[in-house]
Amino acid sequence: MTTRREQTSQESRDRILTAAAELFAEKGYRQTTFADVAERSGISRGSIPWHFGSKEGLLLSVLERSLTQIRAGLADGPESEFGKNAGLDVGFDRLMEGARALTTLPTTKLFVTLLVEALEPGSPIQGRYVEIHNALRDHCRRWLERLPLPPELPAEALSVMIIGAGIGIHQQWLLAPNQVNPDQALTTLRTLLKAAVPPTPK
Amino acid sequence: MTTRREQTSQESRDRILTAAAELFAEKGYRQTTFADVAERSGISRGSIPWHFGSKEGLLLSVLERSLTQIRAGLADGPESEFGKNAGLDVGFDRLMEGARALTTLPTTKLFVTLLVEALEPGSPIQGRYVEIHNALRDHCRRWLERLPLPPELPAEALSVMIIGAGIGIHQQWLLAPNQVNPDQALTTLRTLLKAAVPPTPK
Repeated sequence: MTTRREQTSQESRDRILTAAAELFAEKGYRQTTFADVAERSGISRGSIPWHFGSKEGLLLSVLERSLTQIRAGLADGPESEFGKNAGLDVGFDRLMEGARALTTLPTTKLFVTLLVEALEPGSPIQGRYVEIHNALRDHCRRWLERLPLPPELPAEALSVMIIGAGIGIHQQWLLAPNQVNPDQALTTLRTLLKAAVPPTPK
Repeated sequence: MTTRREQTSQESRDRILTAAAELFAEKGYRQTTFADVAERSGISRGSIPWHFGSKEGLLLSVLERSLTQIRAGLADGPESEFGKNAGLDVGFDRLMEGARALTTLPTTKLFVTLLVEALEPGSPIQGRYVEIHNALRDHCRRWLERLPLPPELPAEALSVMIIGAGIGIHQQWLLAPNQVNPDQALTTLRTLLKAAVPPTPK
């Protein structure tokens, strides 16, 4: 049973993480201070290190939560509808939904901001960032492996390309939202896949 | 006629730009100081603002030079061999070469580092960054418009997807060079295009 005190602690933690994710996206990791996070979250400045240790600990927890959210969104165990019988269209619809979420979530810029941190030599978040990419690629690969792919389209390499297209289309849109239509770009990828992959037998 | 003095000035400018591009990629824009650039380039600290005004002016000039280099690399006027008769394979080979250069150039990380700067609200470099994306998309679109594309593959949307795939594959590789093979991923894109686009008539 969760005590009232534990529940409050969990709520504080969540509010700090939400505020930190927003601020890292808006101001960048380095420019964000504990004082900023305290102001945004309404939680006292002193309790932030109590929850997360250091600013680096806070960043790792923000990434950890994003990874959990992504994994939950992608849930495709063998028991799920998606897992059992996902043809090209169903699978692609799910990928499109995920990509569309990227263009509407308020903290979507976070991943770009943190990419730079992750690329620093010896960065503690590089491993987490690679895990996020791996989770996306694995999800895509497992979907592709259920399709009758021709031998010249290995699922592994194709998943790098599809996730790459999602990342790169999103970034072009972030910079020029009036010039770039992410939906139309993703639809061309679906059209290409349908031309190359024979329909799944019913 | 170029005087000796003008020539020296141009050389100093080039050395400063090369050093700045390296340092922005390695340390990030904000962490780089004029003193760092002076040390790396061997040009006195005081002459940097003389050439570029402010640090922001230096950043804009670094981006300007990258844009010129990219445009030169993509040169495909109607008189060039590429322009006259570029089938899917020739065009794709050129795109592959460009993408491969991204994985070998020492300053390739610069574009990711600066992307974050470009995404800052009111950033002075956002316009330049959008120009770089536009130059890449336009180049790709002009190539696609020479191919017999089916109507469900508009060149504009397809070019956003192809450039996006290049950007996103490159970033996955930057983070996990031992797990991601950019060549194999790009080859799947070529395979998909060949399946969807009929061969160009000779």
